Amino acid sequence: MKEIETIDMLNQLNIDLQGDVGSPLGFIAGGLHVGLRRKKRDFGWIYSTTEASAAGVYTLNRFKAAPLIVTEETIYMNQSLQAIVVNSANANSCTGARGLQDAKDTQAWAAEQLNIEPYKIGVASTGVIGSFLPMEKIQYGTQHILNEKYNQSQFFNQSILTTDTTTKHLSVQVEIDGKTVTIGGTAKGSGMVHPNMATMLGFITTDANVDARTLDNCLKQATDQSFNMITVDGDTSTNDMVLCMANGQVDHQSLDENHPEWHKFIYAFNFVSQYLAKSIAKDGEGATKLVTAKVIGAYHDKEAKKIAKSIVSSNLVKTAIHGEDANFGRIVTAIGYASKHVEPSETNVSLCQLPVLEHGMHLPFDEQLLKARLTEDNIVIEVSVGDGDGEAAAYGCDLSYEYVRINASYRT
Amino acid sequence: MKEIETIDMLNQLNIDLQGDVGSPLGFIAGGLHVGLRRKKRDFGWIYSTTEASAAGVYTLNRFKAAPLIVTEETIYMNQSLQAIVVNSANANSCTGARGLQDAKDTQAWAAEQLNIEPYKIGVASTGVIGSFLPMEKIQYGTQHILNEKYNQSQFFNQSILTTDTTTKHLSVQVEIDGKTVTIGGTAKGSGMVHPNMATMLGFITTDANVDARTLDNCLKQATDQSFNMITVDGDTSTNDMVLCMANGQVDHQSLDENHPEWHKFIYAFNFVSQYLAKSIAKDGEGATKLVTAKVIGAYHDKEAKKIAKSIVSSNLVKTAIHGEDANFGRIVTAIGYASKHVEPSETNVSLCQLPVLEHGMHLPFDEQLLKARLTEDNIVIEVSVGDGDGEAAAYGCDLSYEYVRINASYRT
Repeated sequence: MKEIETIDMLNQLNIDLQGDVGSPLGFIAGGLHVGLRRKKRDFGWIYSTTEASAAGVYTLNRFKAAPLIVTEETIYMNQSLQAIVVNSANANSCTGARGLQDAKDTQAWAAEQLNIEPYKIGVASTGVIGSFLPMEKIQYGTQHILNEKYNQSQFFNQSILTTDTTTKHLSVQVEIDGKTVTIGGTAKGSGMVHPNMATMLGFITTDANVDARTLDNCLKQATDQSFNMITVDGDTSTNDMVLCMANGQVDHQSLDENHPEWHKFIYAFNFVSQYLAKSIAKDGEGATKLVTAKVIGAYHDKEAKKIAKSIVSSNLVKTAIHGEDANFGRIVTAIGYASKHVEPSETNVSLCQLPVLEHGMHLPFDEQLLKARLTEDNIVIEVSVGDGDGEAAAYGCDLSYEYVRINASYRT
Repeated sequence: MKEIETIDMLNQLNIDLQGDVGSPLGFIAGGLHVGLRRKKRDFGWIYSTTEASAAGVYTLNRFKAAPLIVTEETIYMNQSLQAIVVNSANANSCTGARGLQDAKDTQAWAAEQLNIEPYKIGVASTGVIGSFLPMEKIQYGTQHILNEKYNQSQFFNQSILTTDTTTKHLSVQVEIDGKTVTIGGTAKGSGMVHPNMATMLGFITTDANVDARTLDNCLKQATDQSFNMITVDGDTSTNDMVLCMANGQVDHQSLDENHPEWHKFIYAFNFVSQYLAKSIAKDGEGATKLVTAKVIGAYHDKEAKKIAKSIVSSNLVKTAIHGEDANFGRIVTAIGYASKHVEPSETNVSLCQLPVLEHGMHLPFDEQLLKARLTEDNIVIEVSVGDGDGEAAAYGCDLSYEYVRINASYRT
């Protein structure tokens, strides 16, 4: 039943993998190179031609970077934004009062260019922690926000990357009140990505008509099933956030839980979030495979989430998958330390659709067949831990030499 | 004051880094190759010429290996042991009823050789999860327990290793009631080592006169400050345990908290545990450096422990240290997600004795000097998070290409 519903919903979406935050009506995005990185674009922006409802979800790390503090406060106070500016290469984190002032100056400069109030601007940074932003470069960036030469949304998608190897973006369309509504998303990973978000930035734009409170609920529930369910290395950064803007440029009845087509909007919104989240997991530093852990039968979803995350977070599982080794004992181990409620005798595990553990006991399996399936790019681990209704999926990647190489020399 | 006391206590210990579980009076240890591994010794034993008080601490993983279940029950029922037999290469885990019977058969065969009751035998296994023990090889091993040719304690130290690169052992002596008491220890790591123990086995023997209840308390508190404070990769295995035997062959007044020299015994016992734990961390799979995180000023020890463990568990910290990169932002990040109680403005961090963060704000530091210090083998991270009395130290290692190589191909 649940699956049929899902396929039916999926058929109603018009998915464009070339789309991004610039796809919905009235949104413009761009970016350029201002000299924070050696050659690549490192400064970007999104703006809407009209004010937009805004919502954000933010890192749970106790050390919050200056731009995150400023943006969180801005959205908390006004529930709306008209633009977001982002820089990569420098996180503006652990930078004290000067860092906060730098984030506010960035707001002010961008506002001046766009001729709007500073409190209509969100700011975000990603990169190395512990140095001040070179503000002349940031200022230079803000001066080009309206320059048509740089206003291509793919430039924005590029400008926010750090160790990512690919841009991450899409847009989907769905009919609401017979009108086409577009939701666009762009994100970056790719190290330090973990449940509750970590050096990941996500931006979602839509031309739907949604008030800020509804948008906030929508973003929170989507995040719980997407950005909070991915992990690359278990670290949660100081800068992570997902920001969402809805400018209402499509003329339909305002969307909220009482709207008859609300479920379609939510489905599309979740689709965007999950696609971006999986793209981040798949492009984890050094990753060669996307690893999905699906858990069912837990006594509630929270429990299932803990187990699913534990599996995709385990370095031993990640290295075994990198080595295409059918070492299911490591999966069992990760299940066993995830939760006190796991009952070995009620636990079954399949790896790449081959059952390897039943009622806590290993099963004979076709070693050659499993070995062959482990060479694929998408590895799925399915776990059943009882007859409860709790279920969850978590997404991660393998752990490779390349991960170590990237991270042993990131800063210097 | 605390430090002077520590040095004074340390001076009273006679430390022998050649010593091991065979050093205390009345303990004999040995091992041989029975064919579980290709060439290396893979079956070992410790026995005492007289019955010994026994205590154990066990994995918190919900999947417990068969030998662990059998040993835990044995010690719980009898509080004493006279021998322990151990095999490497096969964990006898996820092996159901047959695995339990195999562990019991091992007990029975060893008991027969030693002419004692089976419930005086502890059993332990370490290695790959999910296959049955080849019992004819185990039986062959038990038949050699009394064979003098194999009764060298260094053979025991070797026989329990898996991916360890070195044996881990020591003994210390301390005077109790004017008599020399010896405590010996042998352990193995080295992947899947994490707080609350993981594919690590530890064995501590002593000729001191200590009842089982006191020994149990002694082991528990020592474990909390040693084996539970190390991490290699965050995974907690199904087989981890530390077993302790005290045969009372030195004729002194029975030791408990009321004995006037109790603190000396406890100090010596902790010393053995911490030395073994640090040896495991230093020999973590692929490790090139021992990483120590010391946290002070937390509002209680538990809080300090969480923060210290978070730092040494972070893949990003571990790879930065492997790359000898002064990326202190990753340390700050790991502190920030460790606990909700961390106050950035009260947090200071030193790396290799150079202050890098003060009141949550990065400090300028001598990059060349720090770079030079990071080339050393022992990396110390000192963190102060307030003015509370809580403190803790955790031990880990760097994350190298070698870790990935070892773990991408362990099973096959």
